[in-house]
Amino acid sequence: MILLGGRGYVGNAYKKYFEEQNITFHEVKRDQFDGSDPKKLADLIQSTSSEFLINCAGYTGKPNVDACEEHKAECLFGNAVLPGMIQAACDMAGIPWGHVSSGCIYSGRRDDGKGFKEDDAPNFCFRTDNCSFYSGTKALGEEVLEGNENVYIWRLRIPFDHIDSSRNYLSKLQRYSKLLEAENSISQLDEFVSATYACWEKKVPFGKYNVTNPGAVTTREVVDLIKKHLCPDKEFEFFDNESDFMSKAAKTPRSNCVMDSSKLSDAGIQMTEVHQAVEDALARWEKE
Amino acid sequence: MILLGGRGYVGNAYKKYFEEQNITFHEVKRDQFDGSDPKKLADLIQSTSSEFLINCAGYTGKPNVDACEEHKAECLFGNAVLPGMIQAACDMAGIPWGHVSSGCIYSGRRDDGKGFKEDDAPNFCFRTDNCSFYSGTKALGEEVLEGNENVYIWRLRIPFDHIDSSRNYLSKLQRYSKLLEAENSISQLDEFVSATYACWEKKVPFGKYNVTNPGAVTTREVVDLIKKHLCPDKEFEFFDNESDFMSKAAKTPRSNCVMDSSKLSDAGIQMTEVHQAVEDALARWEKE
Repeated sequence: MILLGGRGYVGNAYKKYFEEQNITFHEVKRDQFDGSDPKKLADLIQSTSSEFLINCAGYTGKPNVDACEEHKAECLFGNAVLPGMIQAACDMAGIPWGHVSSGCIYSGRRDDGKGFKEDDAPNFCFRTDNCSFYSGTKALGEEVLEGNENVYIWRLRIPFDHIDSSRNYLSKLQRYSKLLEAENSISQLDEFVSATYACWEKKVPFGKYNVTNPGAVTTREVVDLIKKHLCPDKEFEFFDNESDFMSKAAKTPRSNCVMDSSKLSDAGIQMTEVHQAVEDALARWEKE
Repeated sequence: MILLGGRGYVGNAYKKYFEEQNITFHEVKRDQFDGSDPKKLADLIQSTSSEFLINCAGYTGKPNVDACEEHKAECLFGNAVLPGMIQAACDMAGIPWGHVSSGCIYSGRRDDGKGFKEDDAPNFCFRTDNCSFYSGTKALGEEVLEGNENVYIWRLRIPFDHIDSSRNYLSKLQRYSKLLEAENSISQLDEFVSATYACWEKKVPFGKYNVTNPGAVTTREVVDLIKKHLCPDKEFEFFDNESDFMSKAAKTPRSNCVMDSSKLSDAGIQMTEVHQAVEDALARWEKE
């Protein structure tokens, strides 16, 4: 097993999981290969005799997605070019792999009111010209991988877990001075990691999977759960609406969307219902 | 002077020009720097004490733009990420630079019937969702460079010159078995090279310039000039229309567009009227 992008929030969760499960893995760091030359990465893969690779490297922007507007080339490279380079390297090395993509390529719900399925065309991307640069590059990353038959594309959405940190959605909601009410499908990070690993372990068919906890939550619902478990007396402030949020707090629009994760559960991989998953995390909350 | 991309059709024209004009230049090849690390390129720039850089590296697809549909990551890297990396490297090294972009980010004419000006938004790109992957990446490359004040963005369109070759538009028209009638602004390559170098030499303001020969030509007009000068008896076949062309000969749509190059001429840099430029090339045609 090769792990790319092990230093980030998602990568660390994979490392913890591999260590807990005694899964041997080799972490490949960004400076160990030329990001524009797949041959060097292919050689690294072959030198470890790995049978699978997981890519959780990507450019997300810090402290938030607005930063991607200022670092477009890095963002395009990390989210759209690098997946193609990894695909080429895995093809050379003759192994399948999994790519951590994102559900942020959608906005809202489908016209029929349901959550977006894997084959629905992105509606929050460059091609619909309504997106953040970040979302545009994530959608392009999926386009780059289209047609390849040895890759899992795992769509993560707004990760959270039970440990307070700057990348944890449940921490972010407590730290922002004002919140935007929106409805989203979200991913409990440890469940995301074990579900994605299970795809490979159980040899479910390659392709795209929405790896979110079943259902959707609104910001106010999550805030109510945070209050119930952590801070009953805290008052949370909300923006009047999205244009209030955009004018006061954001440079670029955010994706808020509902996803349908039934393809994953139909493949035999279950995740906890989303409200329950949020409660579970808050019930064992660990302050940073 | 640093030259990137010296091995291509455009790069070779720059090298010939620099040699004729006794302009000292350093050709930097793709394998001399990590395409995802601007620091190494910045070091190379500084080691040569160059005051300017010209980038004519890019991914165009061979034998034609259809190939970009099969090599999306390389295409994105060469046309959209690399310009951003070069910008970062030039900023580190403290020098201005010029980027060979393309007019292929437009289709047709403006709504008012005129040619597209530099500030018109691209209408053949990912954001308008009607383009080839190639055009999408070229438009993204311009987006990546937006807001930088030390860069010329020179838009080339369908280059041609008087020497028969597989990349020369006048040769291509003679070699294709069937042609698509369309109206285009096009660029005589040697004039493109001297006009772009003049931008730097004359210190015209940085920014975007359409570097096409003034006016527009139709495919049939160019074919008539080819017949007149080279092969009076040859019959050229044409597709019935664009959808006939798309269904029989192409995987991805082509940009055909008319551009307004008056910003360049207003800056004091003149190019030959387009029909005359085609005649001049054909009058001194050199068979491969």
